This record gives sequence, structure tokens and C-alpha cells, in this order.
Amino acid sequence: MYTSITVNTKLIALLGKPLGFTKAPTMLNGAFGEAGLDYFYFPVEATAESLPDILPAVRRMNFAGLVVTKPLKIEMVRYLDTIDPLAEKTGSINTVVIKNGKFKGYNTDGLGFTRALSDKYGSEAEEKTFVILGAGGASRAVCFSLAENCRAKRFVITDVVADAGMSLAADLSAKAGVEATFLTPGDRRIPVEISRSDFLLNASGIGMEPHLNETPVPSEWLRPDLFVCDLAYNPPKTRLLVEAEALGCRIMNGAGMVVMQGAMQFSLWTGKPEPIETMRDIIKKVLGL
Amino acid sequence: MYTSITVNTKLIALLGKPLGFTKAPTMLNGAFGEAGLDYFYFPVEATAESLPDILPAVRRMNFAGLVVTKPLKIEMVRYLDTIDPLAEKTGSINTVVIKNGKFKGYNTDGLGFTRALSDKYGSEAEEKTFVILGAGGASRAVCFSLAENCRAKRFVITDVVADAGMSLAADLSAKAGVEATFLTPGDRRIPVEISRSDFLLNASGIGMEPHLNETPVPSEWLRPDLFVCDLAYNPPKTRLLVEAEALGCRIMNGAGMVVMQGAMQFSLWTGKPEPIETMRDIIKKVLGL
Repeated sequence: MYTSITVNTKLIALLGKPLGFTKAPTMLNGAFGEAGLDYFYFPVEATAESLPDILPAVRRMNFAGLVVTKPLKIEMVRYLDTIDPLAEKTGSINTVVIKNGKFKGYNTDGLGFTRALSDKYGSEAEEKTFVILGAGGASRAVCFSLAENCRAKRFVITDVVADAGMSLAADLSAKAGVEATFLTPGDRRIPVEISRSDFLLNASGIGMEPHLNETPVPSEWLRPDLFVCDLAYNPPKTRLLVEAEALGCRIMNGAGMVVMQGAMQFSLWTGKPEPIETMRDIIKKVLGL
Repeated sequence: MYTSITVNTKLIALLGKPLGFTKAPTMLNGAFGEAGLDYFYFPVEATAESLPDILPAVRRMNFAGLVVTKPLKIEMVRYLDTIDPLAEKTGSINTVVIKNGKFKGYNTDGLGFTRALSDKYGSEAEEKTFVILGAGGASRAVCFSLAENCRAKRFVITDVVADAGMSLAADLSAKAGVEATFLTPGDRRIPVEISRSDFLLNASGIGMEPHLNETPVPSEWLRPDLFVCDLAYNPPKTRLLVEAEALGCRIMNGAGMVVMQGAMQFSLWTGKPEPIETMRDIIKKVLGL
């Protein structure tokens, strides 16, 4: 028989679109189950247009929180009652904690990524330069956390949505006090910047379903001493990471970020300690890593 | 691990309040599971006040339907796009089928009860007289189905909410062409009417949680040749049914009605044949009957 949700079950909805490939519900429900907590996490496809119809119901139902993903990480900010200071600086959120129908927004993406990075590579990002592909909500969060928590030095950002890229570069300069430049995707300086950079970070979604066979940059632009990161975790290695690894680059996918941020979200909703090892075990099973 | 709901899972919400004691999700989810269908049924506590916030989200999400219970069976009618003719006559609904965000209302309560009755006792209700305790949505549906489908002859209705009782009596006379009278709960004619009546039907909820030890009429008013029905199914025997059975009355609880209406709802939402035997097996397990 199916798991039953009762009137006491605390609900968590994952909002975004498309959500057909997400593994997050399996992971978080696994963590709730391991901890014996009556929480249930499920995906609800939502867009900027449907949010105004969905959120009033969320306030009325037995929701403990939300997870917010593409394309709503920035859009959701306007619906919050209060916002965590780090998320406010970032300008994007991925986690909402609901108490008495009030929404408080957090962003665990940035800290999730930088904690996963420093877990494995210590203070590797300190004083380093980054080329960032994509300037959506997750990218903003990661860049701010790299700048603020890891003392990264310089960012070159590119995105097909010029407004998003320019505003991220401007915000990083103004609010985090780092060097940050925007280049349009076709700009000839991009391969030059990559050749000078310590890190290449793909936050564009290219390489994930339904763009599995695509890569955001030609492999000729990579070199063995470039550290190549991809926020994607499904597939575990995007074409970019496969090509980088073949060249001898250090690579990191988004799985560690997912573990860390899932553990942080769990703790925000339940008030219990972060179940990092449980999350790691679950994501290994779920993703077959 | 928990069952996972995906973006393809068709959702069914049970709306009403309180829902802490409902077994309906376990039963319907069991039937969906047996049939290998990706549907998920869960309770959402809702009131007339919260419906306007909840229903727009339901239209936006991947809902195949709703079940509507106390206190919303009549209230919900105003939110429908279309209504089944029987439900319209009854003036109350318990089932909504959702297609492309449009709501069509049905009432399976009445037919559920009369089909369960005739299954066991044939045309027992024909030309018979009924005293009906309670005039809420389920009661309305059952009375209309008794009048229209079973040719019941006469109804005496009582309810603490005089408006509900009077309008049910008036509607039964006007729309179903039967004899129907309302008496206020303290009226001395009630025991007289019961003594003359063939059936006593409790649709008041008295005898269910949180009124487990209560009974709507003193046992002195019962007699062995009275057929005593209770729409309650949890507990399987309310105090009224226990006392009636001790006196030698024929008794029927609401379990058969739940089986029939669950099978009808399943068929309305999925387009598949009514899984009556499956529903019967599941409800036996769930209620320990």
C-alpha cells in the first residue's frame, strides 16, 4: 500500500518547471523516513504565472516549507514575508520555511556548493578567478557564496540573458566587492578568459535533460589545470565534465551541493541537526554514484 | 522509502474538516495501487473560508479530482463549472472530476447508500417510511436516492440546524414528490414517528469521533422490527447500532455505502470499471470488519 499522508503530515512542495527529472523528493523523503518524521515532499510544476494561484493554498494547507527551483528562484522573492540576510544579498532563494502561514526565504544553493567544495578541496577558491556560465538563481547564489565565504577574487560571467548576466556582475562588484565582468555568449574574449581562469563553472543547465548531448564550451577551450565544476547532478557527469575529466581536469558536479543543501533544508524545516551522512548515502543510492 | 509523487501523478484531495479520522485515503490509494494506476489521494483540511484560496491552486496543479465532505458538500456547488443532474437535484456534491482545470460535480453518497442497501436487502425501502436524523449533505443525497431510486414513501426529518432540515423536507416534497416533514429535535412527535416508521437513519454524525459514546435517540425509542441505519462507518457500530442490534433490529452501517461510492469515484476519475470487490476487500482490512 501507498504511504499515507494524514492531516498531521507536514508537506513540502518543490516548485518549478520542468520537474520531470528531479530526484529531490526521493532524497528528502528518504531522509524524513530515516529520521521517523512525518513530512512529505512532492513536486508541483509551477511558473511565474501560476504562483499567484498556488501560494494562497500553500498558506492554508499543512505546509512546513517549499523548495523553489528554475525558473522561480528570483521570482519567489516578492512573495516572502521575511528573508534571510544572505538570501537577500543574493537576490534569489531556493528554500522557504513556513510558520503560521508566513513565508521566510533562504538560499542554501550557494553555501551548499561552497561547503561541498571546501569539504573536498579546502580553501581552494581563495584568491581564485572564475568563469561562470549562466546567471540564474543558482548561479547568483554560488557566486555570492564564493565571493563572501571563500574569498574568490574575480568573476567573468556569461549568459544568453544579458540582463541577468550584467546584473549579477554589477551586484557582485557592488555588494561583495569583487572584480566581476559580463561578456555576451559570442564574445571572443571568453576563451581567453577561460585560458586565464582557475575555475570554469557551468550553471547554465546545458548538459542536463533535455540538453544531454550538449556542452556549453568546446573542449578545445579546456586545459588540464582548469578546475571544472557543473551544478548539474543528473546526469552525474555532463558532457562538459566528461570532456574535462578526459583532459585531466579536476571536476566537481552538483551532487555534493545537493547533499549539503538538502541537509540544510532538512534542518531549517524540522529544527533537527543536519543529516549530512544520511543525505550522502541516499544521494549515492538515488544517483548510482 | 516513501512512495514518490512525480509530476505525472494524478492527485485527488479530500476536502473537509475535521479529517483526522478518515480512512478514505488508505482505501482509494489501495485501489489505485491494486490497479497499478499513478494516482495519489490525500486529505486537505478545508473550510468554507479557505476554499477560495485552495481551489485556484487545485485548478493549476495535476489534480484529477476532489472528494468533498463535511462541512463543504453544499458549499462546494458554487465552485463547479458543471454538475451532474442527480447531484443538482440533491443540491450537494461529494465528488469532483477535474479535466483541463474545469470542475464537474457528482454525488455518489446517495447512490452509494441505496446500492449498498439493495445489494443486501433488495427493494426493502420501497413504499417505506423513514425517520432521518441529520440533514447535511450526505443526508440530502441519501434521502433523494431513497425517494428517486428506491421509491421510499415518507420522510420525517430532524436536525439541530432547522434551516437545513426544513429545506430538505421542502425539497424532497417539491423535487421528488414524496411526503416529507421537518420536526425540531425536541419535538415530542419524534418518538411517535419513530414508533410508526420502518427505518431510522442516523446521518447526524453522533456516535462518531469525537462523540463516540453518544447516541442520537434513547434506546427506549427503538423496537425489534425497526431497520436502523447509520451512515457512520468508523466505528463500525455506533452506540445507536449496538443498542439496536441488542434489541434484535436489522442494522446497517455506512461501510457498504463507502465501498460503493469509492468504487464509483474510482471509475469517475480513471474511466475504468468500478472495482467493487477490491474496495470491499480493502475496507474490510482497513476497518477490521
